[in-house]
Amino acid sequence: MDFSLTDEQELLLESVREFCERYFTEDVIKEMYETQKMPDEVAEAYRDMGFGLMGIPEEYGGIPADKVTLGLMIEELYHSSGCNHILYQNSLTMFDIVEFGSPEQIQKCMDAYLETGWPLCSLSISEPGAGSDNRNMSCTAKRQDDGTYRLNGQKTWVTMGEHLPYTIVVAKDEDPSRDNAKMSLWLVNMDRAGISTASLHKIGQQCIPFCEVYFDDVVLTEDDRMGAPGDGFMMLMKNFEVERAFLVAEQVGLAQAALEDAAAYANQRIAFNKPIANFQMIQEKLTEMEIRVQNTRNMLHKTLWELDNGISVQLDSALLKRYGCTECFNVADMALAIYGGLGYTTEVRIGRIWADMRGNMFGGGTPEIMAYIAGRQVAKKYAQ
Amino acid sequence: MDFSLTDEQELLLESVREFCERYFTEDVIKEMYETQKMPDEVAEAYRDMGFGLMGIPEEYGGIPADKVTLGLMIEELYHSSGCNHILYQNSLTMFDIVEFGSPEQIQKCMDAYLETGWPLCSLSISEPGAGSDNRNMSCTAKRQDDGTYRLNGQKTWVTMGEHLPYTIVVAKDEDPSRDNAKMSLWLVNMDRAGISTASLHKIGQQCIPFCEVYFDDVVLTEDDRMGAPGDGFMMLMKNFEVERAFLVAEQVGLAQAALEDAAAYANQRIAFNKPIANFQMIQEKLTEMEIRVQNTRNMLHKTLWELDNGISVQLDSALLKRYGCTECFNVADMALAIYGGLGYTTEVRIGRIWADMRGNMFGGGTPEIMAYIAGRQVAKKYAQ
Amino acid sequence: MDFSLTDEQELLLESVREFCERYFTEDVIKEMYETQKMPDEVAEAYRDMGFGLMGIPEEYGGIPADKVTLGLMIEELYHSSGCNHILYQNSLTMFDIVEFGSPEQIQKCMDAYLETGWPLCSLSISEPGAGSDNRNMSCTAKRQDDGTYRLNGQKTWVTMGEHLPYTIVVAKDEDPSRDNAKMSLWLVNMDRAGISTASLHKIGQQCIPFCEVYFDDVVLTEDDRMGAPGDGFMMLMKNFEVERAFLVAEQVGLAQAALEDAAAYANQRIAFNKPIANFQMIQEKLTEMEIRVQNTRNMLHKTLWELDNGISVQLDSALLKRYGCTECFNVADMALAIYGGLGYTTEVRIGRIWADMRGNMFGGGTPEIMAYIAGRQVAKKYAQ
Amino acid sequence: MDFSLTDEQELLLESVREFCERYFTEDVIKEMYETQKMPDEVAEAYRDMGFGLMGIPEEYGGIPADKVTLGLMIEELYHSSGCNHILYQNSLTMFDIVEFGSPEQIQKCMDAYLETGWPLCSLSISEPGAGSDNRNMSCTAKRQDDGTYRLNGQKTWVTMGEHLPYTIVVAKDEDPSRDNAKMSLWLVNMDRAGISTASLHKIGQQCIPFCEVYFDDVVLTEDDRMGAPGDGFMMLMKNFEVERAFLVAEQVGLAQAALEDAAAYANQRIAFNKPIANFQMIQEKLTEMEIRVQNTRNMLHKTLWELDNGISVQLDSALLKRYGCTECFNVADMALAIYGGLGYTTEVRIGRIWADMRGNMFGGGTPEIMAYIAGRQVAKKYAQ
Repeated sequence: MDFSLTDEQELLLESVREFCERYFTEDVIKEMYETQKMPDEVAEAYRDMGFGLMGIPEEYGGIPADKVTLGLMIEELYHSSGCNHILYQNSLTMFDIVEFGSPEQIQKCMDAYLETGWPLCSLSISEPGAGSDNRNMSCTAKRQDDGTYRLNGQKTWVTMGEHLPYTIVVAKDEDPSRDNAKMSLWLVNMDRAGISTASLHKIGQQCIPFCEVYFDDVVLTEDDRMGAPGDGFMMLMKNFEVERAFLVAEQVGLAQAALEDAAAYANQRIAFNKPIANFQMIQEKLTEMEIRVQNTRNMLHKTLWELDNGISVQLDSALLKRYGCTECFNVADMALAIYGGLGYTTEVRIGRIWADMRGNMFGGGTPEIMAYIAGRQVAKKYAQ
Repeated sequence: MDFSLTDEQELLLESVREFCERYFTEDVIKEMYETQKMPDEVAEAYRDMGFGLMGIPEEYGGIPADKVTLGLMIEELYHSSGCNHILYQNSLTMFDIVEFGSPEQIQKCMDAYLETGWPLCSLSISEPGAGSDNRNMSCTAKRQDDGTYRLNGQKTWVTMGEHLPYTIVVAKDEDPSRDNAKMSLWLVNMDRAGISTASLHKIGQQCIPFCEVYFDDVVLTEDDRMGAPGDGFMMLMKNFEVERAFLVAEQVGLAQAALEDAAAYANQRIAFNKPIANFQMIQEKLTEMEIRVQNTRNMLHKTLWELDNGISVQLDSALLKRYGCTECFNVADMALAIYGGLGYTTEVRIGRIWADMRGNMFGGGTPEIMAYIAGRQVAKKYAQ
Repeated sequence: MDFSLTDEQELLLESVREFCERYFTEDVIKEMYETQKMPDEVAEAYRDMGFGLMGIPEEYGGIPADKVTLGLMIEELYHSSGCNHILYQNSLTMFDIVEFGSPEQIQKCMDAYLETGWPLCSLSISEPGAGSDNRNMSCTAKRQDDGTYRLNGQKTWVTMGEHLPYTIVVAKDEDPSRDNAKMSLWLVNMDRAGISTASLHKIGQQCIPFCEVYFDDVVLTEDDRMGAPGDGFMMLMKNFEVERAFLVAEQVGLAQAALEDAAAYANQRIAFNKPIANFQMIQEKLTEMEIRVQNTRNMLHKTLWELDNGISVQLDSALLKRYGCTECFNVADMALAIYGGLGYTTEVRIGRIWADMRGNMFGGGTPEIMAYIAGRQVAKKYAQ
Repeated sequence: MDFSLTDEQELLLESVREFCERYFTEDVIKEMYETQKMPDEVAEAYRDMGFGLMGIPEEYGGIPADKVTLGLMIEELYHSSGCNHILYQNSLTMFDIVEFGSPEQIQKCMDAYLETGWPLCSLSISEPGAGSDNRNMSCTAKRQDDGTYRLNGQKTWVTMGEHLPYTIVVAKDEDPSRDNAKMSLWLVNMDRAGISTASLHKIGQQCIPFCEVYFDDVVLTEDDRMGAPGDGFMMLMKNFEVERAFLVAEQVGLAQAALEDAAAYANQRIAFNKPIANFQMIQEKLTEMEIRVQNTRNMLHKTLWELDNGISVQLDSALLKRYGCTECFNVADMALAIYGGLGYTTEVRIGRIWADMRGNMFGGGTPEIMAYIAGRQVAKKYAQ
C-alpha cells in the first residue's frame, strides 16, 4: 500500500491553489451569487491553465489524467476556492461528450470549449417525475414518416440550460411507458423551435443557474443523435459512478474549507475568558469533523483508484456518495455550530457553504437511493 | 395526570388557525421575505384578535393567560402560518416591558402598541463579544457630573432595531470589566444623538430584520432607566427561561408544519411505481419526525406547567431548548430529505422553513451552552 | 394540563421503594443471576404488599388501578431495584388471564397466585419463525374425531416455561398455512404427554429463565381453550399495546437507575485533578441521558393516560416502544461510558443493567417493527 | 496511491485463515470462555506458524514485518476466528519487551516464548485511579539504603497476570505525587514476596483473564529494571500509538465477522414471506455496517502506513481509536439488531462478539480521551 502523492500531483495541487487565490476573490464570489453566473474569465482561466482539459483524451487536445489525479484536482479546486461553483460540472459535461459523441460532435464541442471556455451544451437528464427512478422518464422522441423525430417532454435540474447553446437530452425511443427501457441521447440546439425554459430558484447554490427545459414537438434528425439508438440509458449509467465520486471530491473540498474556517475561528473566539477551542464540546466537534473529512477522502481515493484499476465500484461509489456527501455536509453543520450566531450571517462564508453543501446531498442520487443500491449489494456480497 | 386541553384552549387554537389562514397567505409570506418586514396590518390583526395582548396583566389592558396556554397559542401560530415570522417576538418584548418597566414606561409602551400594533422598542442585549457569556459585555453607562449618563458600546442581533422608535439596552454600570456584574436596563429613544445602526444579513429568517446598534456617547437620564440600578442582569435572567420555552413553541409549530408537508408529499409522490410513503426508508423518517415533535411538545408543555406552578425550570428549560430546537430542526431536515431535490427549490416552502429553523438553534443560547448549563445541574441533582 | 401525581400515587411509590430496598439486596440479586430464578419469598412479598394484585379487577380479589398508576408503579419497581427481574411479567401474565380466561380459569389462576406468588402459567406465543410476523406461526391444534385436539409445534422465548405448571399457547386452528388467521388460545398443563422443553441461554437477563417448548401430539380438550375459538389472534393484539408500554416503564426505571449511578460516579471520580463531572464531555452525556429519560417518561405517561381515556394508542405505543426502549438503552450505554473500564467489570452494576436493557429492545417488537407499524400510520394521519 | 496488497501479504492472510479454521473451532472457543483461558496448543501454534514472531527483529529470532502487514495479519486473525481472544496481546507484550528490555531480558523472554508459546510476563500499567490520566499513578519504587528498592501500589487490568511468571510494572521513582513524572519499568517475578492478585470479572471478553495485582513492599534490585531509570513514561508513550492501531485491527476484524454473519442471516431469515434482506430497513443497516468497516479499515491502513514511513500519527491514531473502536462496535450492534431476539441467545455468536467488542472501546483509551487528545491537535493544525 502507498498513500503518498506523486510529485506531479503535488505540483498540480499547488497550481490549483494559485488559480483559486487569483480568481476566487471575495468580490468574484459575491458577484457570482448575485448574478447567478460565473464570469467568463474564470471559466476561460480554468481552461487555459489546463484544468479544464484534464481527463480529456490527447487526441482531442486534452490532457490525459487518471481518476485519482482528477479527484485530487477537483477536491483542491473546491477547498481552495471555498465556493460551490460550476467548474467541475463543466468538466463532467466534457467527459460525457468525449465518451458518447461521434468524432464530429466531439470536435464541435472541443472547438466551442477552446473558444469560449464553456462546454457547448448542458445536460437534460432528470425529469420532475423521474430522478433516480429513471425508468419513469416520459420524455420521448418519436420517429416520423419523413425520417425526422419529434421530441416531447420536460427536463429539470438542467445546469446552465438557459446559457449554453446546446443541450444533451435523454429521451425514450417512441414509447414513454415504464416498460420501455430503450432511450437515446440527442445533442439538441437550444434555438430549435418548440424549446422553452424556466429558471429554478434554489435555497442555496445560487451561483449555479439551473432551469427546467420544455420540449414541445421539437424536430430532430438522425444527425442529432449521440451514440447508437436505444443505448442512452446504458451510456448514462456508465458515467454515473465516476460523476458521483467527483461530486464527493467537490464536497470534501468544501468540508475541508469549513473545517479550517471553524478551527481558526475557535482559536480566536474568546468566551468565558478563553479561546473556545479550549472547551471540550468544541474539541469534540473538531475531532468529529476531521474524522469525517479523512474518512470521506480515504473512501474517495480508494474508489477512484479502483476505477483506475478496472475494479467495479458499483458498491463503493454508492457507499461513497451516501457517506461522503452526507457527512461532509455534517462537517459544515458543525462548523456553523462553532461559529454560533455569526455563522448565520453573511459576515462569514460558512453559512453559504452550509446551504450549498446540503444541495449536493441530492445531486447524483440521494442518501436513501444510495442505501437502496448498496444494501442489496452488501447482502449479495456476503451471501453464503 | 391530565393531558387534555380545556375548551377555552381549543377555541383559542381554532381562532389562531383562522387568523393564520387569513393573514399568512403565500403572497404575504413572499412579500415579507422580499421586503424583510411584516405588513402592519398583520401585526395589527395580531393585536386586534387579542393574541398580542395575551399574557399581559389586565391592569394594563392585557388578557391574562397561563404559560401553558401561551405556549399552545404560539405553537399553533407557527404551525398554521408555516413561517418563521416576528409575531412571537412582539409578545416577548411586551412581556419584558410590563415586567421591568415603571408604570409610566409601561403605559407609554401599551399606548404605542395599541396605536401601531408594534412594540415601542427593540431589545439590545447581545454584543459581538458577549452572547451567552454575558459577563463579557462591554457596553457601559457612566454617570457624569451633571447627573446624566453616557452610553457607549455596540449591540447586535437587535430585531427590528432599525424600525422601532425605542430600544431597551442593557449596559454595565460605570465599568466594562469582566468582574463588574452590575448592569442596568435603559429605555432609549433611537433618535438620540450618537446612535447608529447597520443591517445584518442572514442566511435564513429574511422576513425578520436584524441589525447592529452602535452607541457613541449617547446621553441618558435617570428617567430612561428601567427598574433599579444594577439589577439589569437579574432582570434579564428572570425572563430567559420562559423565552427559551416560547422559542421552542415556535420551533415545534414549524416542525409540525414540515412534518405534515412531508407526509402529504410522501403520499402523493410516486417512485418505482408506488407512493414513496410505502418505502421503509420514508416510513422510518416519518416515524422519527413524529417522535421528535411529540417529545418536544411533551417537554414543552411540562416545562410551561412547571412555570405556571412555581416549580424551578432552570434544568428543564435548558434541556428543552437543547433538545427541542435541535431535534425540530432535524425534523425539517428529514422533511427536506423526503422532498428530494424539489425541496431545495422555492417551489415548495420546506427549504425556507429548514433554513429559518436552523437559526432558532442559536437564538436564546446554543445547544452547547444548554449542555453547559444542564450538565452541571444533572450532576448536582443526582449527587449522593 | 396537569403533570402532578396524586397523594395516593406518591404513597404507592414510597411503598415500592421500601419493598425494593428490603428485597432487592445485592445478595438477592446476585443469587437470582446465579440460580437464574427469583426466590419465592420475593414473588410472595410482591403479592402480599399488593403490587401483584394491582390492575386485577376487584371481583377476582385484585386492586383496581388505572394504567398511569400501574406504569408509575412498574417504573419505580425497576428504578429502585436496579435489576431487570421477572416481577412485571408476573403482572402481565395475570392481566392476560383475567382478560381472556373463563371464570373457572381465572379462579384457578388466582388461587394459584394467592397460594404461591407465581402465575399459574407461562405464555407460549413466539415461534422461531414467527415473532412480530405472527401470521407465520405454524403451531396448530387439529380437531380429532373424538372431539379432542392434537397440538403440534414449537414455541420460544417462554419465560418461566420450565418452572410454572401451565402454559398459555396460541395455535392456529387446523391449518398452519400463512393464509389462516384463525388462532385459539389454550391453557395447557405442562404435565401433559408430548411436551418437552429446552432452556435458552441469553447474553443478559440471566435472572429470568427462558425456554423453548415443544408440543408433539399433545392432547387438548375443549375445556383447555381460553376464549372463543378462532379469536386468539385478536385477543393477543388487544393486550400488546399496553404490554409494550409497561415494558417501557421497566426500561425507563432501569435507565433512571443507570443515570443516577453514573452521575454519582462522575461526582466522585477524579481525573486530571478534578471530578470528571466537571468535564464538558461528561456534562454533555449527563444532559443527553436526562433528556432521554424525561422524553421516555413523558411519552409513557401520555400513552398510558390515553389508554385510560379510551384514546387509540396504535401509533403512540409504537413510537413509545421504538424511542423508549432504544434511547433508555442508550442511557445505559452512556452510563457505561462514564464509568470507563470499571463499568465493564462486575464490581459495579451498570454492566449488568446495560446488557439486560439491550434485551428489552427486542421484547414486544423490535425498533424496526415499530417503525414499520408507526410509519404507515404517520403517513395516513397527515394524508390530505 | 496504491491500495493493493502484495502477494506475500495475500499468502500471509491465507495462512492466517487456515490457522483460524483449524484452531478456533466452536468447541475451542466455548472452552476458552468457560475456562477463561486459551489452550496452550493454540498459543503454541500461533508461535509455530510464525505469526507470534512477526514484528520481532531477526536478531532475536523474529520475523521482520512492517506495520501495515502486521495490521493486516491481526485483522484477519480476528475476522477468521470471530473471537476476541488473547493472541494479539501476546504479540504486543513481545513488542514491548524487545523494545524496552536489555539484551539479557530480551533473551530470557524469547527463550520463554519459544518454550511455552506464552510471553514471559504480563503488563502492569493501569491503576484504579490512573488510566489515561497516568500522571495520577501512585505505585512507587523507593530506593533503600542497601541499594535495593521497595515497590508498593496496586495495578489493574493486568491481562494474564495470574498465569504468567513475570510482570512488567511501571512505577514512579521515589515519590507518588502528581508532579513527579519520573517513572521506571521493572520486570518483576510474580513469585517475589509481597505480591498478591485478585481476579477481575468482566461483562464480556471472558476468554481473556484479567486481574488486579497488589505490591506490598516488594523488594527489587537494579537488575530488575527495564531501560534507563526515569524513562518509563516515555517508553510507554512510545508504543501506545501502535498498540491503539493494532487494537483497531482486532476490532475491525471482529466487525467484519459480525457483518458477514448478519448479511448471511438476512439472506436466509424469512419474515412477511420474504428474506429480510429485501427490507429497506435491513438494507440500510447493511449499508451503514459496510461503510463503518471500510472507513475503519482505510483509516487503519493509512495510519499504519504513516507509522511505517516515519510520519507522526499522534492525531491520526487518536482519530482511529475513537472512530474505529466505536463504530465497529456499532456494526456489531446493528448485526445484533438484524438477528433480533435470536442474537441475544448463545445459539449464535453475535451476542458474544457484541459484548466483547464493547470492552475494546475502553482498552487503550476511551473515545472521550481520544477526542481530548485529537481535538486540541486539530485546533492547532488549522490555527492561522
